[in-house]
This record gives sequence, C-alpha cells and structure tokens, in this order.
Amino acid sequence: MKKLVFGIDIGGINTAFGLVDEKGDIFAESVISTKAYPKFSDYPRYIKDLADAMKALMDSVNFDFDLVGIGVGAPNANYYKGTVEMPANLWKYSTPDEGKEEERNFNFAKDLGAYFGNVPVYITNDANAATIGEMVYGGAKGMKDFIMVTLGTGVGSGFVANGEMIYGHDGFAGEFGHVIVERGGRECGCGRKGCLEAYASAIGIKRTAFELLAVMNDPSPLRELTFSQVDSAMLSQLAAKGDPIAKEAYRLTGQKLGYALADAVTITSPEAVFVFGGLAKAGNLIFDPIKWYMEENMLAAFKNKVKVLPSELQNKNAAILGASALVWQDAK
Amino acid sequence: MKKLVFGIDIGGINTAFGLVDEKGDIFAESVISTKAYPKFSDYPRYIKDLADAMKALMDSVNFDFDLVGIGVGAPNANYYKGTVEMPANLWKYSTPDEGKEEERNFNFAKDLGAYFGNVPVYITNDANAATIGEMVYGGAKGMKDFIMVTLGTGVGSGFVANGEMIYGHDGFAGEFGHVIVERGGRECGCGRKGCLEAYASAIGIKRTAFELLAVMNDPSPLRELTFSQVDSAMLSQLAAKGDPIAKEAYRLTGQKLGYALADAVTITSPEAVFVFGGLAKAGNLIFDPIKWYMEENMLAAFKNKVKVLPSELQNKNAAILGASALVWQDAK
Repeated sequence: MKKLVFGIDIGGINTAFGLVDEKGDIFAESVISTKAYPKFSDYPRYIKDLADAMKALMDSVNFDFDLVGIGVGAPNANYYKGTVEMPANLWKYSTPDEGKEEERNFNFAKDLGAYFGNVPVYITNDANAATIGEMVYGGAKGMKDFIMVTLGTGVGSGFVANGEMIYGHDGFAGEFGHVIVERGGRECGCGRKGCLEAYASAIGIKRTAFELLAVMNDPSPLRELTFSQVDSAMLSQLAAKGDPIAKEAYRLTGQKLGYALADAVTITSPEAVFVFGGLAKAGNLIFDPIKWYMEENMLAAFKNKVKVLPSELQNKNAAILGASALVWQDAK
Repeated sequence: MKKLVFGIDIGGINTAFGLVDEKGDIFAESVISTKAYPKFSDYPRYIKDLADAMKALMDSVNFDFDLVGIGVGAPNANYYKGTVEMPANLWKYSTPDEGKEEERNFNFAKDLGAYFGNVPVYITNDANAATIGEMVYGGAKGMKDFIMVTLGTGVGSGFVANGEMIYGHDGFAGEFGHVIVERGGRECGCGRKGCLEAYASAIGIKRTAFELLAVMNDPSPLRELTFSQVDSAMLSQLAAKGDPIAKEAYRLTGQKLGYALADAVTITSPEAVFVFGGLAKAGNLIFDPIKWYMEENMLAAFKNKVKVLPSELQNKNAAILGASALVWQDAK
C-alpha cells in the first residue's frame, strides 16, 4: 500500500498541512487558522480542531494508504522533547497570573499524536524542517555535509554533518542568524547587538537601505518613502532596475552573509550552502556578493570548493515538504 | 586475549608512539626522530624505520596481545583519504624540479599499513586526535555534542555532533583557529588577517602583551625583554605574580576566545567546550575571561548551559592517547 506522511507548518497566522509521499508529491493539502486560537487556554481546542481537519483531509484522498508519520515545523520547537517552548506568538497567557512564562511549554508531539494512535510525531523548527526537506527532496539529496540558510523575516539555518542534522545537546543548534557579524552593531530582536539577522533578513536589508540613504547622495524613489512603507520585494525590484541604493543594499547584505559563511565553513566544511527565502529570490543580486565575499574571506584550504546554491524547494510548498521530510529522514 | 592499539604522534621534531589499551593505559612507548628524514626522498625510509621501531616495541611487551589497529595524528592529515597532504615541515622537496608542491602528498595509512598486514590504519590531524582522545578516555566520555579547542603554537579544534567527529565533506573541518575575530586585524600565518589564531595562540598572547606595552603605562619586567625573548610560559608566571600587563593579556586572550565560542555555540549547541594546550595550563587566568565573555555574548537560549572545562588529558600523553583513540572510536 502507498505510504504517506503528514507535513504540518505552524505559522503565526495559519497552520498548513498536507499529505506527502516519499518523492515529495503532495496529494492533498489544507489549512486551519492559528490565530483563531491565540490564548494558552485555546491550545487543547487547537490540537483537537487540527486533528479533526487532518482526518477530514485523509478521508478526502481517493485511494488507500498507510499514514506512517507526522512531521511538524513550528517556532521554538524542540526535536528531542517533542515540545514547543515559550513560542513568542502562539498560545499566550491572557493574564500574568495564568502561569509562569518558563512553564508555557506544550507537549505538541504527544498531544497531537494522541489523536492518531501509534503514528509517530516529529517536530522541529521551521529552518531545520526546511533543511531536512532539502536533504530528502531537494538539491542536498545524497549530500552528507551542507548548510541551509533561510532568509525571511529573520535568518534561520540548519547544519548537516555526517548526514545528520546538528540539533546540539539541547535541540537548539543552528542559530546562525545570531552569530555576531558586527560587534556592538545593530540592535537585534534577540536583545543583543550585531547579529547576522539584523543585517541579512528582509528587515535587515531595509535597515541597510535606510542607512545608505544617509551615506550616499544618489537620487532614488526610496527618498520619498517611509521606513514602514518599504519592504524587501520593493528593494529587489528597484535593484533590478538599477537603483544604486537598492543595489548597494544587496551588495552589503551579501557581504555580511559571505563573511559569516566563510567562518561557518571553517567549522563544518560543507559541500554546499543552500539559500532559501524571500531574499534568495533576488537571484544574482544576492548570490553574487555572497559568493564573492565568502571566497575572498575563506581559508585557502576551502577556496573554490563550496557551492552556494538556491534551494530547490524555493518555489514549492517548502514548509509542508520540510515538515513531512522529518518522517522520511527518521525512517532511514 | 588483551587488545592493544598503536597511537602515533608525528611532530616536526620527533615521532612518538605507544601501545594503548581501551582504558587509555599506555603499556609501552618509544620515539624516533622525524627531523632526521627531512626530504621528500626520505619518506619511504622514514616509514620503514618507523615500522621497525614499532615492531621492536611490540616485541618488548611481555604478554600476548592482539594489535587491533593503528591511529596516527599528523599535520595536514586527511581522515577520509588516509593521506598527509603538503605538510609544511615534513618531507620537503630538495629542489624545485623534484615535483609539484600540490602533488607532495603521502599515502601514509596505506604505506605504514603495508608493514602490518591487515591491521587498519587511521589518520587525522592533531586537534581531531585530541578531540577523539577526550571522547574516548577523557571528560567528554558519553557526550554526543562538544567542542575541543587546542591552544598551542596555533589554535586547533575538533567539533563533535551526534556523537561523531565533524570532518566535513573533504576531511578538513574544524579549523576554528581561522574564524575571523577582528576583521582586518593581525596578520595570520594563513595569509589572511584577524584569525582567532593570531590572538589566542601562544604567539598570539605574546603579540597582545607587546601591544599592551604600547597601550599601558604600568611598569613591568616585560619592558626589558625583546619580542623574541618572551614566551607564553613567562607571561603566565608574570600574570600569576600580578603583573598588570601579563594579566591584561590573558583577559584579552580569553575575550577573543569567548567571543568566538559564543558564535560557535549558536551553530552546534554543545554540552561542553574543552580547552587543551599550553595556554590552558594558566587555569583561571584564561578560563575566567573565556567563560565571562562567552556567557556575556551568547544568545539567551544557550546561556548558563555550556560548560567550559580543562581537558582531562592535559597532563597525560595526550598526543599518543588521542591518536590511539581513533581506532577505538571507529570500532564502536
């Protein structure tokens, strides 16, 4: 009988899920709202409603199959414990006396699994899920050592060595967005200063563009827009049209990524670096400076050996695929 | 029958080797000169003389044993290929027309193995050997995720994730001494600028002390010594006596290591960092600032979780033990 797995992507707005086979074909997919369940006390109902929607999706498939596992990508997920711990935008306390923040942890794998008998549930964060998706379905198929960098609102990452995801001793490894690229530099959402994420994320490149409005004298449509009005897609369009400020913002973003990757390569010596996410869609605008600054700053032993490639899941439903890949990866 | 392995440490001056059991007890050890075989054409004779000396050592053991493997720590060693590639101080060409530098590679594992029948030979660089030694015999026993940093003439490292050494796709991973800690900073032996090794090695701390002679006004015996006269042992003695310049040099050395480790931790999330080598002998002088700056600069998720510990092989014959551990590690 055909084997399928669930891939579930939990975002702040929606939870998307699909039934996926070993090749990465999605046979059915659906979505429920995440933000309709904002409170701590909403969590049990969220799990039940998600399980019901998943079962309805299973019923909609018009052939027999075995459900062999459930893979989940979620913020603040711990692979080892199967938990979601203190997620910033999910299931929050309504009042301070509802509980201690450090106890706002959810046994997600256990709670969802309870609705599916003996089917195993795996959970990890979005960037790790994307990494395993690349390894199971994408360009990293057959690679034993690679780095995945996801450039979204933040900067996420996954490191694979000896064919295995590096989760670290506590399940929280791969926070490449928080290596320091400029000591004492820009404020980061994590409370520290100078993290890669403050430069190389969708918001980071916007910060760079606004810094450049002060540094450079070139005219640009950006001079007529507020900080809140600009987004990274706009910068990409402007750069493609030759806007010198937007182009320079891409160069500086790639530079910071190149610097940070040159250092990361000395540690894990990967075969390739895959880049995923909104900023990666800018193509050569971002890939050229990443490669140039990475090579320029790399130890001789690693030069001209490490490929920098766009994720092959870039234009697919990467979040569902990544989550589903967790199951196939474990089955190996 | 008792099982023993050879651990061999190839240094520029001497090659030390010993017969070691699974617990890390060395039953016999000996040494031959490395520098008596300086030329490319000396290499076959070096291998033969080493094999003869190893067999003589085996004969000297007064009980029966099985030789189950040979582990070798050597500069520029490639674990995957069993080779030593372009070593800076070993088996060099006498004349430029003897061969191309990029072809000055030695099939060490195969060549030495030829003298020992079917006994497997493993080879890796010194820092990786020390790392596996810590995992097999030392403080990292039972740990699946840790970092080893060796502070000698240079800065070496070994990263272990999921219980396995990270060799990278080409066998050259773990060059932590060459992450950039000061962009555009001090010249490094690798030809780049600002590497950790230029600050946190035995020579690095001396460079810091001499920089401080210019920055600080405090009197110090260091003001009467030339750069060539000073070594890191001297700085350690002076710092222990309260010399303000030597003390500050240790603080700044620990600071650079702390910064670099805080970044490395975000990638592999280790249970512990082990520090080995001459500088580690200075105890709190170096461990206190490493810990302080690492914690101070670390992402919140990792704070107060990562132990910083002296290597437990520090006062043992770590080089022979590390090399021998390669065999036991593979046997697992």
